[in-house]
Amino acid sequence: MSFNTFGQLLRITTWGESHGPAIGVVVDGCPPGITFDLKRDVQGFLDKRRPGQSRHTTQRREPDEAKVLSGVVDGVGGVLTTTGTPIHLMIENVDQRSKDYGALAQTFRPGHADYTYWAKYGVRDHRGGGRSSARETACRVAAGAIARLVIKHMVPGAQIRGALVQMGARKIPLEQRAGRWSSAVIDDNDFFCPDGATAVAWAVDLDAIRKAGSSIGAVVEVVAEGMPVGLGAPLYGKLDADLAAAMMSINAVKGVEIGDGMGVAELSGVENADEIRAGNDGKPLFLSNHAGGVLGGISTGQDIVCRFAVKPTSSILTPRRTIDEAGQETDIATKGRHDPCVGIRAVPVGEAMMAIVLADHLLRHRGQVG
Amino acid sequence: MSFNTFGQLLRITTWGESHGPAIGVVVDGCPPGITFDLKRDVQGFLDKRRPGQSRHTTQRREPDEAKVLSGVVDGVGGVLTTTGTPIHLMIENVDQRSKDYGALAQTFRPGHADYTYWAKYGVRDHRGGGRSSARETACRVAAGAIARLVIKHMVPGAQIRGALVQMGARKIPLEQRAGRWSSAVIDDNDFFCPDGATAVAWAVDLDAIRKAGSSIGAVVEVVAEGMPVGLGAPLYGKLDADLAAAMMSINAVKGVEIGDGMGVAELSGVENADEIRAGNDGKPLFLSNHAGGVLGGISTGQDIVCRFAVKPTSSILTPRRTIDEAGQETDIATKGRHDPCVGIRAVPVGEAMMAIVLADHLLRHRGQVG
Amino acid sequence: MSFNTFGQLLRITTWGESHGPAIGVVVDGCPPGITFDLKRDVQGFLDKRRPGQSRHTTQRREPDEAKVLSGVVDGVGGVLTTTGTPIHLMIENVDQRSKDYGALAQTFRPGHADYTYWAKYGVRDHRGGGRSSARETACRVAAGAIARLVIKHMVPGAQIRGALVQMGARKIPLEQRAGRWSSAVIDDNDFFCPDGATAVAWAVDLDAIRKAGSSIGAVVEVVAEGMPVGLGAPLYGKLDADLAAAMMSINAVKGVEIGDGMGVAELSGVENADEIRAGNDGKPLFLSNHAGGVLGGISTGQDIVCRFAVKPTSSILTPRRTIDEAGQETDIATKGRHDPCVGIRAVPVGEAMMAIVLADHLLRHRGQVG
Amino acid sequence: MSFNTFGQLLRITTWGESHGPAIGVVVDGCPPGITFDLKRDVQGFLDKRRPGQSRHTTQRREPDEAKVLSGVVDGVGGVLTTTGTPIHLMIENVDQRSKDYGALAQTFRPGHADYTYWAKYGVRDHRGGGRSSARETACRVAAGAIARLVIKHMVPGAQIRGALVQMGARKIPLEQRAGRWSSAVIDDNDFFCPDGATAVAWAVDLDAIRKAGSSIGAVVEVVAEGMPVGLGAPLYGKLDADLAAAMMSINAVKGVEIGDGMGVAELSGVENADEIRAGNDGKPLFLSNHAGGVLGGISTGQDIVCRFAVKPTSSILTPRRTIDEAGQETDIATKGRHDPCVGIRAVPVGEAMMAIVLADHLLRHRGQVG
Repeated sequence: MSFNTFGQLLRITTWGESHGPAIGVVVDGCPPGITFDLKRDVQGFLDKRRPGQSRHTTQRREPDEAKVLSGVVDGVGGVLTTTGTPIHLMIENVDQRSKDYGALAQTFRPGHADYTYWAKYGVRDHRGGGRSSARETACRVAAGAIARLVIKHMVPGAQIRGALVQMGARKIPLEQRAGRWSSAVIDDNDFFCPDGATAVAWAVDLDAIRKAGSSIGAVVEVVAEGMPVGLGAPLYGKLDADLAAAMMSINAVKGVEIGDGMGVAELSGVENADEIRAGNDGKPLFLSNHAGGVLGGISTGQDIVCRFAVKPTSSILTPRRTIDEAGQETDIATKGRHDPCVGIRAVPVGEAMMAIVLADHLLRHRGQVG
Repeated sequence: MSFNTFGQLLRITTWGESHGPAIGVVVDGCPPGITFDLKRDVQGFLDKRRPGQSRHTTQRREPDEAKVLSGVVDGVGGVLTTTGTPIHLMIENVDQRSKDYGALAQTFRPGHADYTYWAKYGVRDHRGGGRSSARETACRVAAGAIARLVIKHMVPGAQIRGALVQMGARKIPLEQRAGRWSSAVIDDNDFFCPDGATAVAWAVDLDAIRKAGSSIGAVVEVVAEGMPVGLGAPLYGKLDADLAAAMMSINAVKGVEIGDGMGVAELSGVENADEIRAGNDGKPLFLSNHAGGVLGGISTGQDIVCRFAVKPTSSILTPRRTIDEAGQETDIATKGRHDPCVGIRAVPVGEAMMAIVLADHLLRHRGQVG
Repeated sequence: MSFNTFGQLLRITTWGESHGPAIGVVVDGCPPGITFDLKRDVQGFLDKRRPGQSRHTTQRREPDEAKVLSGVVDGVGGVLTTTGTPIHLMIENVDQRSKDYGALAQTFRPGHADYTYWAKYGVRDHRGGGRSSARETACRVAAGAIARLVIKHMVPGAQIRGALVQMGARKIPLEQRAGRWSSAVIDDNDFFCPDGATAVAWAVDLDAIRKAGSSIGAVVEVVAEGMPVGLGAPLYGKLDADLAAAMMSINAVKGVEIGDGMGVAELSGVENADEIRAGNDGKPLFLSNHAGGVLGGISTGQDIVCRFAVKPTSSILTPRRTIDEAGQETDIATKGRHDPCVGIRAVPVGEAMMAIVLADHLLRHRGQVG
Repeated sequence: MSFNTFGQLLRITTWGESHGPAIGVVVDGCPPGITFDLKRDVQGFLDKRRPGQSRHTTQRREPDEAKVLSGVVDGVGGVLTTTGTPIHLMIENVDQRSKDYGALAQTFRPGHADYTYWAKYGVRDHRGGGRSSARETACRVAAGAIARLVIKHMVPGAQIRGALVQMGARKIPLEQRAGRWSSAVIDDNDFFCPDGATAVAWAVDLDAIRKAGSSIGAVVEVVAEGMPVGLGAPLYGKLDADLAAAMMSINAVKGVEIGDGMGVAELSGVENADEIRAGNDGKPLFLSNHAGGVLGGISTGQDIVCRFAVKPTSSILTPRRTIDEAGQETDIATKGRHDPCVGIRAVPVGEAMMAIVLADHLLRHRGQVG
């Protein structure tokens, strides 16, 4: 994993800033001969992440339309086929109100990358955060769509789904935890929330937060169902180590959990043991999944369960104390159009990163073991 | 990060199984001209991780003596100087009671890598878990000692310290959180606990757990003090993404947090903003550290704070339901000498991984920015 | 080095096919704060490689205009400054006469990648060779221009120059070998030839070859002057191993030499020793340069001399025996607009790859050694 | 490819100096379930490279016995089975006459890495060249033996053979070029020479050179027979780019050729086209192999032919002018036990590197394409 590249055999490299002409991603190592429909198989996921879809996300208007510039051949009816060469997906930036950022030119938002970029590089593109903008995550979603095609090609029937499971102190109820999600419910509210009642409560919460000129944190859960046993490798190539890096590389993420996550600290060995019975299909039948589908860094064949916490947006209307590039003390309040809860739009991003990690590991496993 | 290699410019590759003749690590990319004393600068850290030092860890007796086989020239008084070529550290295995593992040969411990290794590779070294044994972490500690030398060479005065901050449901009190640790206290109990009273309570807890034939989870916190602003890179080269991968690659770790970690979900943007004042030294003075010293993937110059949760050992005396390689249902109880709380000995391992990540990023930063 | 990425700290990733909408390259890891003028510092090198500049190269008309889509901030007078984030350079394809390639759709050109792409991937973009087209080298030249900026920034006064030193059996005379090149001469003919008389002879040669419906091979030499001692690393990180990979990765290259190259086979140890005297500047004064500026994989401070052989274009008018995708025997003659000697336009490409390798090693050396 | 690591999916990392206690190599990514006999399948190749086997190589006496310290399980009759985890092979250094090197402590051999190591790192292990010693190549041969097992496992019947095809100005006759080699002849002389008469002449040549206190260069050819079509990838992942890096990373190599190599400069497109007919087995039948079995970076299914030139040893008895670490002018004559033609023992090393590259590409191809 270098600066702007992620993955080993399936490898993504992203480029672009929030307020430049475009952003994009090169997906390298995709198997050849996979057919897809750009609108259905890629654009659909970008639309989920797209801003401005409800009053609960930023009002920036970006069509987020991905163009495929390489790595495919065209067929009848617009069907594209991968050729095994690098697939470049580009998304033009349309709605860039740079004037919104005038005040930020020389001042650092507390809790934002403004200061660290400036201190590291001595130069920065302050408009929209430049490279640190959450806009980069559109590239992840586009690449994740390609990764999903790879997974579908190799493991038909596998499925990757994400949901918002906590916003502020309010969590979804236990009976709606992973394994019991209804996609219909998740898709039917503005929060990717698996519980309708909680979604209603969150809407009220978030309106109040926005009015107060603040923002709020959240937890996203992503689950991969139907994946085979055997993905990953001991130690530095652990499936969960790659998932941890993948999720922590998303903007604003501060914690990553696999299975019971930080909660394992309170478990005894007797409780934590996911006991095994012989399943009717000849496979092991696990009686629980504290492990989140990964043991010793290798998938068990159970659901792979990953959660990550997203901090509240640092771009808020409430003034906060800070300094500027000259070291002078000042206050700052951010007036741009920002998400009061970036966790919401992080749901499709987390799904995409899960897909990228799994597709890469499917190829790596096939490479080593056949 | 490939299968058994970690890092970019400072790169470690480990090899070896628990019950083979030895284990080892190749540290590549170390700057030349760094002098050290093997006993003081490497062995001291290995001794912290060494088993059998109190009744609370495994009674396996391993001297864990590291030999340096390459990458240095000898000087007067046994002082070694790095030459810039790969440093190979090897640790012989001494106390291998393979007979303890007879019963495990064909049966999978629930919650252990036994099943996934077997399912992935079709063959496994069942003695002591083979490659999945926590014994591999001795190599991390040895490599971490070299990484500490690199850090000391480049950032004199920087310091990396870890502590056990939670065992089971019992956490250290708030007033002993990072920033207020006393190394004297941490080094004066069997748990690397920064609070003497908690250590006493944990000793009672753990005796009960061991007697009950069970084990318990824990949380380790690692803090780097005195590190400069500017380490890390946007997105896939984020300092915290590498820390997440590093910690999640340690055996039995199921969650990783930076700064407030999973707790950020409950924070508002107003609370989460680490406000900034102008410090007397011309540097920014942060009024809080919810970010854990990392913003936008780049260090802020504050303490870098990382926590990880370690699950309870799956090798326990209490019988658990499982299957064997033939798919037959059976029960298993593990009689070997195992740590009732692997979290304890994970403290020096977490410190080592923090050191390896930071040393690598110091070199990477110097490479790109000078 | 993965499929479409080259380099460690300075890392390029290219994408695009000859007959798609565009091609491009992401340059990652560039130091921040380097200022440049797109026209002068990038476009100038692309113009050297651009087709259609004389009757001796393909008549395809491509403006080859590079746009910078990320990684820079704009300043006064169009001056761009690198920000340390990935620089994406894109070049649109303009002159794509796909109809020229109709006959090639199902037939393999002998000596071309047609067959191997098809056999490997089961699908290929036959138009212009798809990904195997020499058009990709425009991306290398664009990336090489950025690499030159990095070198200039770190080693003012260093210089990278290439020349065609052999076409067919005709070589430039000994007195015009590297070290005695005149840039004025090289820039004043259609062949990047350092000897005017040879250039005149080559023009006659090449006209005859083109008329005969054939093509011809060539040797390119690239020299880096003014580079410091110490770049490279022992063994797998050898400067010359990276140069060999870099040059061999250029289309149609079949041999790479450093210094005396294959000729060292005939040298005795007495002859091959580049004897050393104490220079007036306190540096070693080498009395010869059989080593081509690299010893033990590390630069000596002398000129770094690399040569590579480019095979004749396989797209020729003379019919050759071959088979088609169905395995049927047939003949093929290629009617598209092709270079009778691809070696000519390989000169700026070789310069670019030399620049990319050296810039990467400058950063890597600074990372490890300071 | 980092400092001391080579390969992507099959990855080798070597460590150790000529005069330290041992040298070794970690082979990571090997498929599980491959059985082998250490003596027959590994030691046999090391014995080919071992010094002191005839009067034509160094008289240093090293048993070069490889021990396998990890990554395998033992079976009946000493049969080892790979487990998919890193295989560490270690070779102890036995015959280290450090006193031979006393004079070299502060003086640089012309044509040797002495000066560049010292200038880069500021410190060096002068005994036997430290890390730059050809002794490191024993690790390559050991790793190559594992790579051969991988190839045999995936492509039964494939074969990798090397030979010395030129020493000084004397080349083997045309009728003994690759494709017509007899292994019996190659194994029956001290030079790995495919022509008995040439071997006799070389013996006379080399005796004269040794008596004259000099040394001589050579060319090694390595051929892989029976490899499938499809290995490699376009551009930076080209099979021949990896071969070029692999061979150039061997000590003393200054040139690498694929197929006709540097000779393609003199070929016309008509000559260079390897024409294709339909073979009786349904595969293409190539009428020639100027391409050396690689087109567009991807194997064609023909013999893969690679040659490299090895310069004469710089450690010679004839005094040469040089300087010392203090910059003082002096003369040097090397009295240690050195190979008068290092090209001879480079034959098994070249075979090993070919095997490592091919095994890696077999796994990479299977990963991407299946």
